Amino acid sequence: MPEILTLYTAKVCPYAHRVELALAEAKANFKRFEIDLAAKPEWYAPKVNPASKVPAVAYGGPDVPADQPSSESTKIAESLVLLEFVADLYPSANLLPKDPVKRAQARFFIDAVSTKFNPTYFGYSVTGKSSQADLIKAFKDIQALLPETGYAVGEYSIADAAIIPFISRLFVGLENDLGLYAIGEGPKTLELIKTSPELKRIQQYIQDVTSRTSFVSTFDSEHIKEKAIKRYGNLNATRATSSQ
Amino acid sequence: MPEILTLYTAKVCPYAHRVELALAEAKANFKRFEIDLAAKPEWYAPKVNPASKVPAVAYGGPDVPADQPSSESTKIAESLVLLEFVADLYPSANLLPKDPVKRAQARFFIDAVSTKFNPTYFGYSVTGKSSQADLIKAFKDIQALLPETGYAVGEYSIADAAIIPFISRLFVGLENDLGLYAIGEGPKTLELIKTSPELKRIQQYIQDVTSRTSFVSTFDSEHIKEKAIKRYGNLNATRATSSQ
Ligand SMILES: [Ca+2]
Repeated sequence: MPEILTLYTAKVCPYAHRVELALAEAKANFKRFEIDLAAKPEWYAPKVNPASKVPAVAYGGPDVPADQPSSESTKIAESLVLLEFVADLYPSANLLPKDPVKRAQARFFIDAVSTKFNPTYFGYSVTGKSSQADLIKAFKDIQALLPETGYAVGEYSIADAAIIPFISRLFVGLENDLGLYAIGEGPKTLELIKTSPELKRIQQYIQDVTSRTSFVSTFDSEHIKEKAIKRYGNLNATRATSSQ
Repeated sequence: MPEILTLYTAKVCPYAHRVELALAEAKANFKRFEIDLAAKPEWYAPKVNPASKVPAVAYGGPDVPADQPSSESTKIAESLVLLEFVADLYPSANLLPKDPVKRAQARFFIDAVSTKFNPTYFGYSVTGKSSQADLIKAFKDIQALLPETGYAVGEYSIADAAIIPFISRLFVGLENDLGLYAIGEGPKTLELIKTSPELKRIQQYIQDVTSRTSFVSTFDSEHIKEKAIKRYGNLNATRATSSQ
């Protein structure tokens, strides 16, 4: 029987969203504490996560208010560490397959998200170092890892929780043209990703993952849009105009 | 009962060494195939690992020669994925603790190796972007994660297999002054790491991990030295002279 678990999180943060998805899938009983990333409480770094990032978990110890963390709970950080932790804590939720080969495939998928998909997403949206063609290729490469039907390794797993927070935030950004690509390019890129016949399998996959209760109950697209407007709204002067 | 496992590896490669350590700790029965990284067999990328890197594993399928991989085996790549795979495949070897909190601590340790320790090692030895002080701090930060005695999370685990291939190769490089730091600085840095009273705990830890049979039987320092001489020997012209 798991002990008391407090999740320090932020709706805007894709890394924190991963852990919220896993906890929702596990139907876990936990306390959720929203951290304002623009104004973190002074107790957060010294008492919860020295790296001062979300997500972080306080696990065990006495039942204290989330904003008065106990020194007796164990503090755990890093989103991928926490995905495995939730899978370990709630084995009956089957957040990882039992078969070692399928578990390895789930972790290989997660590694591809970390080392290939996400850098391209950030390269396209945040730094301008990746092109639309790079982004489409990143979707194709993830698509190539998917089985014919179902989730990343068949049944829903932490692999799905690892990627969807990024895809869903990318989509909000593209829809609202909020990113460092050329002005006007965002909605066109979104249309391409959502309708290209070459991306049929991953389109279905995204549909499958985002229609689950775990996603619907943890994703606040309006909030994320507002935060993205604050982040990119005043960068428009630095953006080129789409020639497409 | 695990199926046939073939490990494609290279003695020089720290990532591949991780998996050899885990297999040695598990007393696994496996076929070892050395890949010459300077002249990879033409079948390796198409039939084993499209990324053309080591380590990679072929698991299951018929009993074939390692240089004639079967399409019926599952191919698995990425050193950290493979560490978890070996831990899953040989549960009685206890390569991860059973307690979810301790498992999380092992994975957090591995994450610190990937995102902090190794970049500083490469920054110091390969690119010149990290200073001796940065390197000492990287050792102190890992030391801060260690329990008072024993291995990274108490009993030996994949966390220890994840870090020691890098520390041991760093030491070979320093001892022989093979790296992009100032000429003559390597042995001085090694002496500092090995004798500083501020690094007492990690000195003991390194001693503990490198005296295990798993390490002694998989680490060929002469071979690694030869490869490092080839890599750095002709770069001496670009190095400064130590003023220490
Ligand atoms: Ca892992």
